[in-house]
Amino acid sequence: MISDDVAAKILDAVDAQFDDQLKATAELVTSPSLRAGEEPAQDLIESRLQDLGLEVDRWTIASDELEAHPGYGPSTVDYTKMTNVVGTYRPQKETGKSLILNGHIDVVPEGPEEQWARSPWDAEIRDGWMYGRGAGDMKAGLIGNLYAFEAVRRAGFDLTGRVHLQSVVEEECTGNGSLAALLRGYEANAVIISEPEEDALVRANVGVLWFTVRVYGNPTHPREMGNGFNAIDAAYQVMGALRELEEEWNQDKVNHRYFEDLEHPINFNFGGISGGDWPSSVPAWCELRVRVATYPGTPADQAWAQIVECVESAAGKSGFETRLTRDGFYAEGYVLEPGSDAEALLEETHRTAFAKELTSFTTPGYLDGRVFVNYGKMPTLVYGPVSENIHGFDERVSVESVRKCTKSMALFLASWCGVEPRS
Amino acid sequence: MISDDVAAKILDAVDAQFDDQLKATAELVTSPSLRAGEEPAQDLIESRLQDLGLEVDRWTIASDELEAHPGYGPSTVDYTKMTNVVGTYRPQKETGKSLILNGHIDVVPEGPEEQWARSPWDAEIRDGWMYGRGAGDMKAGLIGNLYAFEAVRRAGFDLTGRVHLQSVVEEECTGNGSLAALLRGYEANAVIISEPEEDALVRANVGVLWFTVRVYGNPTHPREMGNGFNAIDAAYQVMGALRELEEEWNQDKVNHRYFEDLEHPINFNFGGISGGDWPSSVPAWCELRVRVATYPGTPADQAWAQIVECVESAAGKSGFETRLTRDGFYAEGYVLEPGSDAEALLEETHRTAFAKELTSFTTPGYLDGRVFVNYGKMPTLVYGPVSENIHGFDERVSVESVRKCTKSMALFLASWCGVEPRS
Repeated sequence: MISDDVAAKILDAVDAQFDDQLKATAELVTSPSLRAGEEPAQDLIESRLQDLGLEVDRWTIASDELEAHPGYGPSTVDYTKMTNVVGTYRPQKETGKSLILNGHIDVVPEGPEEQWARSPWDAEIRDGWMYGRGAGDMKAGLIGNLYAFEAVRRAGFDLTGRVHLQSVVEEECTGNGSLAALLRGYEANAVIISEPEEDALVRANVGVLWFTVRVYGNPTHPREMGNGFNAIDAAYQVMGALRELEEEWNQDKVNHRYFEDLEHPINFNFGGISGGDWPSSVPAWCELRVRVATYPGTPADQAWAQIVECVESAAGKSGFETRLTRDGFYAEGYVLEPGSDAEALLEETHRTAFAKELTSFTTPGYLDGRVFVNYGKMPTLVYGPVSENIHGFDERVSVESVRKCTKSMALFLASWCGVEPRS
Repeated sequence: MISDDVAAKILDAVDAQFDDQLKATAELVTSPSLRAGEEPAQDLIESRLQDLGLEVDRWTIASDELEAHPGYGPSTVDYTKMTNVVGTYRPQKETGKSLILNGHIDVVPEGPEEQWARSPWDAEIRDGWMYGRGAGDMKAGLIGNLYAFEAVRRAGFDLTGRVHLQSVVEEECTGNGSLAALLRGYEANAVIISEPEEDALVRANVGVLWFTVRVYGNPTHPREMGNGFNAIDAAYQVMGALRELEEEWNQDKVNHRYFEDLEHPINFNFGGISGGDWPSSVPAWCELRVRVATYPGTPADQAWAQIVECVESAAGKSGFETRLTRDGFYAEGYVLEPGSDAEALLEETHRTAFAKELTSFTTPGYLDGRVFVNYGKMPTLVYGPVSENIHGFDERVSVESVRKCTKSMALFLASWCGVEPRS
């Protein structure tokens, strides 16, 4: 690690620019970068990367290579107008190690605004928290990457290793944004993704699959309800069958390293439902949008085969028809193998920034880390600030946690890539 | 009843114009008169009523008086551009009894067209059936009214009683169309509604209420699913509670004349569901569209109070919030008291047209008859042809049944209103 003196200067630089960092975060939160609407927010990122003097690469993610990749999740939106942005720093003489700092620009829908205590897009700071959709997941981390990079320079140093600051799309639905960045050729000796992870390091995470089940009923007039088959009821039967599969997979946790001690590592979420055309017609159709999780090491194809079998068997027993469509994540989980240089360094920088030991944990949520670990074979540290209610109402991120994570990241950058006095 | 000789001429006239009648029915079926889109179909009706030489009254149904009526169902569409059409025949000297022939122009949504064997709007005739959304419910009956009227004239007679041929909107959702016609002042000594009723007479029917339940959940990231509350699950709890109320009401059938022998007279239909914004967010909301039935004599207010109590109690037990909104039918059922002159006459004309006895039955579906019986105090005969799959796929109506019903109706018209040779 860098000397205490260099570290002190960098920590001071983070503090000195922290008000600016919060303003930049708030500005990004107020740009609602919902799926397929990320471009204005990517404009902001591109502009900031240019202000940092970086070489900027912005490209639309649509490609045949992407669609052919085993880690590709089937998309329901048009990729020909959706872009990733990467800012690259190249030292004059590259002597240090290289690093990718990754973050995603997309946010999940805010849901009914009436259930928020404030606008989801006001980025208000109150009692030490910044509020807003995406404040935690993960605009604070994404902007934090930029300010960690900038802090080293403001402290009077140039990095001696290559750095790629990535802002990707599609993390909340397919993971195809980071996959497109990998296919674009971006590689480094390590990756950090500054997701909201409670000031801790992710040791392992689940794979995630998305799909839609459409159930076909037999509609009739309610006066003949006995003859009809209510597709909403049938959808509930499908949910029941999938819950049994979920339970079965959870029972199997004892066979999966890092998952044994989690109470309920595998969550199936029924995230959307719609069905029926008319209150006085027995519904002819119902669609259920489902997110399931899998253990690392379970190929998506294997999980998918079990899901199809589960749904079709439930439908067969009750005599209704279903159609299953993959329409998002088709992603395997990953494990961050302990013992990497990158992890050892993060332990040090975390201790300096937080004055406590780094802990690691297993998360039952999807992470783009799987792209870099499974397909890029790069040590990937998913590590970031304390948040609450991500994907919920009144999402918020802890301001002091953001400050400390930025410090830890800045120290990591300087130590990993190496520094020399600014020329 | 009229003499056999007059009857024979009228029956021949129905046969003679029956090809025209089928063409007119098909033309009406091919005009998809879905809710709030009935005007082109009403244009067709208006034009036909004018061709019959009738005094035509067409008016938008919006009115304060309508909204203030206890039988009004809260509407979710704009009534200022939706019209009823009534054609009135006035004999030069009114010596006979008057009659309203009523039918509704609106049809329920066709649902996913892929589940139909043909277009829902092609009105194809095959193997003795006319297919199409609304063919049975109730364009065959509505056009049948016009041709029954015309057959008397073609047979060489003028009616000596006043006749109102009504084409109303809103029968499938609120019943406000017939209510608006009653409030317009249309009254008669009897009413016939030519709904598809299996060549039989409706003795009693249920009241119907429509409402939406919105359930509020507490959304989170699926990684914290234990902390969240899935509104889709909550909606199914509401469904469960309502099914218990439905069962309770069905148990009570022994206390309701004409319902004792029905296996399941009270049907609660969950006709629509929608909820959730994102597969990877635990859903924050779910809306359920519900149709419930009640026995005649049960005031809508009383049923509604029980429904509210049922839903709120289920929500209270599980600690979630709901909002209930009435958004359609708020209608009590009715009983056609036996012994009316009108029913006695229909028994005769049915016997002549079908060569078998008229039967009556109780239907667990809504009928506009409740408007004329409960608020107009008029004997109301709901009687019409054999159909299949109304509100379902491949709806169809029996062509021969339509012919015989038209004959029975034409004989009824001539006998009820009286005839004299055409001048």
